[in-house]
Amino acid sequence: MYLRNAWYMAGWDKDFPADLPQPLTLLDELLVFYRQADGRIAALEDRCCHRLAPLSQGRVEGNDLRCLYHGLKFDAAGRCNDMPGHTSIPKAMKVRSYPVLERYNAVWIWMGDPAKADESLLPDFVGYGSPDWYMAPGRMDYAANYQLIQDNLLDLSHIAWVHRNSFGGGNADTNKAWMEGELHITPLERGVRVERWMPNAATPAHQVAMAGPTCDVLTTFDYLVPGIFLLSSRNYRAGSAQRSGTARPTEEPLHASFTAQAVTPLTARSTCYFFTFGPWSQAAGDGEQMKQSFLALGRQVFEEDRTMLQAQQKVIDADPSRKMLFFDVDKAPVMYHRLVEKLLAAEAQA
Amino acid sequence: MYLRNAWYMAGWDKDFPADLPQPLTLLDELLVFYRQADGRIAALEDRCCHRLAPLSQGRVEGNDLRCLYHGLKFDAAGRCNDMPGHTSIPKAMKVRSYPVLERYNAVWIWMGDPAKADESLLPDFVGYGSPDWYMAPGRMDYAANYQLIQDNLLDLSHIAWVHRNSFGGGNADTNKAWMEGELHITPLERGVRVERWMPNAATPAHQVAMAGPTCDVLTTFDYLVPGIFLLSSRNYRAGSAQRSGTARPTEEPLHASFTAQAVTPLTARSTCYFFTFGPWSQAAGDGEQMKQSFLALGRQVFEEDRTMLQAQQKVIDADPSRKMLFFDVDKAPVMYHRLVEKLLAAEAQA
Amino acid sequence: MYLRNAWYMAGWDKDFPADLPQPLTLLDELLVFYRQADGRIAALEDRCCHRLAPLSQGRVEGNDLRCLYHGLKFDAAGRCNDMPGHTSIPKAMKVRSYPVLERYNAVWIWMGDPAKADESLLPDFVGYGSPDWYMAPGRMDYAANYQLIQDNLLDLSHIAWVHRNSFGGGNADTNKAWMEGELHITPLERGVRVERWMPNAATPAHQVAMAGPTCDVLTTFDYLVPGIFLLSSRNYRAGSAQRSGTARPTEEPLHASFTAQAVTPLTARSTCYFFTFGPWSQAAGDGEQMKQSFLALGRQVFEEDRTMLQAQQKVIDADPSRKMLFFDVDKAPVMYHRLVEKLLAAEAQA
Repeated sequence: MYLRNAWYMAGWDKDFPADLPQPLTLLDELLVFYRQADGRIAALEDRCCHRLAPLSQGRVEGNDLRCLYHGLKFDAAGRCNDMPGHTSIPKAMKVRSYPVLERYNAVWIWMGDPAKADESLLPDFVGYGSPDWYMAPGRMDYAANYQLIQDNLLDLSHIAWVHRNSFGGGNADTNKAWMEGELHITPLERGVRVERWMPNAATPAHQVAMAGPTCDVLTTFDYLVPGIFLLSSRNYRAGSAQRSGTARPTEEPLHASFTAQAVTPLTARSTCYFFTFGPWSQAAGDGEQMKQSFLALGRQVFEEDRTMLQAQQKVIDADPSRKMLFFDVDKAPVMYHRLVEKLLAAEAQA
Repeated sequence: MYLRNAWYMAGWDKDFPADLPQPLTLLDELLVFYRQADGRIAALEDRCCHRLAPLSQGRVEGNDLRCLYHGLKFDAAGRCNDMPGHTSIPKAMKVRSYPVLERYNAVWIWMGDPAKADESLLPDFVGYGSPDWYMAPGRMDYAANYQLIQDNLLDLSHIAWVHRNSFGGGNADTNKAWMEGELHITPLERGVRVERWMPNAATPAHQVAMAGPTCDVLTTFDYLVPGIFLLSSRNYRAGSAQRSGTARPTEEPLHASFTAQAVTPLTARSTCYFFTFGPWSQAAGDGEQMKQSFLALGRQVFEEDRTMLQAQQKVIDADPSRKMLFFDVDKAPVMYHRLVEKLLAAEAQA
Repeated sequence: MYLRNAWYMAGWDKDFPADLPQPLTLLDELLVFYRQADGRIAALEDRCCHRLAPLSQGRVEGNDLRCLYHGLKFDAAGRCNDMPGHTSIPKAMKVRSYPVLERYNAVWIWMGDPAKADESLLPDFVGYGSPDWYMAPGRMDYAANYQLIQDNLLDLSHIAWVHRNSFGGGNADTNKAWMEGELHITPLERGVRVERWMPNAATPAHQVAMAGPTCDVLTTFDYLVPGIFLLSSRNYRAGSAQRSGTARPTEEPLHASFTAQAVTPLTARSTCYFFTFGPWSQAAGDGEQMKQSFLALGRQVFEEDRTMLQAQQKVIDADPSRKMLFFDVDKAPVMYHRLVEKLLAAEAQA
């Protein structure tokens, strides 16, 4: 049901303070994260092998985590290295440990075969500390299966309806563009790329003097395994769309914004949604204020998604025998579904 | 488990305002009700056939309902007639629609085969706008299977116990009459009729001068498929019971009251209970005040039922293997059970 | 899953007032307790055999309990002795009754074969009215299976960790003694006995003048079917441990305290924990104040247990396929498990 050989975002780095083990359920598995003496992150299953007490109720001791039910202590690799009142420790006294990475202001965990954990498979996420964009860290939890969020992101035509008054600004032309614009959809090795030109969009106010009242916007996103969404929106001078065709213009855009999002399943019915969203750091204005206003817009818009997707989940659960009907507009979701099926089959075989 | 070829009460007419789609789960099915441009009611399954989003989160447009996830629009017959960004609409793009009726100040829905929806099968309900009775509309929800409410209504001997201080007024003779009085039970084509004379009941105060201190009360109810309870209580001069035997007296009663009730399953463990309850409109006194006082008495009494039936449901759920023991007093419930089994078998065969 | 031929504590005597039937779910069974006219306790299944309404919504009439749905009345043996409106009562009209005892300020129920109910199998509990100890009655509910509480009590090495700051007083030596002290474990016919000497413990303040700053503490507990924990803690002059070996000293202790506890399963995931805990009644000081301070300490310590055990239960439920690993420290729990398995097998065979 879940892809396992992939890096899942577990949280922002600041969510894992020193000395405080953090319980976290990911992909329906109980995990505990803690920082070792030198600050490096470690992740173990949150279940002492002795009496199945949660290690997250324990305490950090140096690089180790001690269970506070009967005092067994485990290192970051999950090996028991202290059993109070005993001199020899049975080999069976160990818990599962997981490969983890700290990158892009975030903590990432590899849920599959540790031997296959490959740092190069971590997508080029953009954290809140990026020098290129003004970004603040966002997070929302959805009471819905991760696939509903995934399919929602892979088909942005929903912006015309769900976000008609927020992203769409109540503008009929803008919403029509989201609904009807032609998409350029490309398979990637571990994802799908979707590009779309929206010509004649309103130029951002501070650029009008230089670029005229309308410009052409190129919106491009990659949706990557296991649920990383990377979208850039770039404003070019009017006419660029027609001139460029499917190629990306070589000149610098007038304006740009970016959003990086990570969809992490907690359980089959709850999903964590992490995001950054902000403008170019070259954009004029107060960076801190921009971070906060983009964060607020993100929250408003994703709240609209959440209302719809949670309602959708309830409809699905009321009769799980009913199947979705995918049609033209769903080309990107369908392409991604096939990729995931292929990867799941490969994992099952291994 | 549910009879389907029958009219279920979905709500009072005033519960379905214009322009506001109403989600409603009936018989464990997700439904959405809305009013078309001309006010006629329509009911569709509350599930867009595309991605299974709830149509009740959509908006009414003329006679149609538009899904606000990706913009598909459906007419009152459930046919998709608009697919934004597409010119041809696949035939599979449709949702189930249900026959509906608006009658007796209430909205009724046919949950079975639309070809068999027959208005003549709608029982003679009495709504809150009846010219014959002072009535106000009531509604209560029970956390119990509809069959517990049905069996409770079909055997009024429980009045002597559950309602001994409300309907029974704490009067031992009255309660004894409810407990021991002889019943005249008759099968109907789509229900059961139960009649009972209670001689020597206290005459309502304002009739004593004319009728003497006691009168004979004829209580008659029909319980009709799929859960319609119609009960009249008629006070006659003392001696009428003996004179009439099982026949209904031909003269007008001194006083009368009526209650119409509809038991509608929401799910297997929740049921909606609609009711009107009031005196003859010829009764002396302030009609509006009478409506409210009968409504208040109804609420008090049905709250007593609800407490008992919800507790009964918990006992049943704690061990579903335990079966009820039906005996003499249960003749009417048993007769009705057999009718329902016969109708269910016929539906299963069709 | 539950031992049935045993006395379970159902509550303190004061929890069962006259005239008020008490519903109680024990071992996943619905029960109703009531006091007969002469004060004797009775227990029936909380389910009228007619329509499965709860008898606990009924009323006590003399030695009987009447269902207030349709008026059936049952005696303390569960026989229906009144059916309103009927002269003969079918034999099937009966409900299950359970043997009960009132002893040690508590009510006890035999959940198995009534023919085997044997008062001599009731352990020597110590209630809140004991003349030997200052005791107040305590009760806590755990959202956990009773076996987690049982295993926790059978292995007191957890005191060094879970109660390191409460019972252990944050004292490293004390906690080390709980963790490493040698246990003397003996099988009993219906339980397990565990004894432990803790030499050189701090003498209670008011005894220091007489006994010196340290004394030797003998802690002995019996854990008895179906979940009765009886623990005494006795302080002797320093040196007594070495002198006595595994035998109990013949002289009176300097000081002593006792705790009696009863672990009663409500359901598979909730358990009632009754306890008394207090010092010798010969102890100097205000008895009422001592009762309350020991009760408060008990509540604090058992709250620490509850936090751990409820968390442990969640870990277990997240993946019931994972098994505990028992090792040396678990000798007493394992011995008790085997006894219970043997008794369960005998019950299954009978």
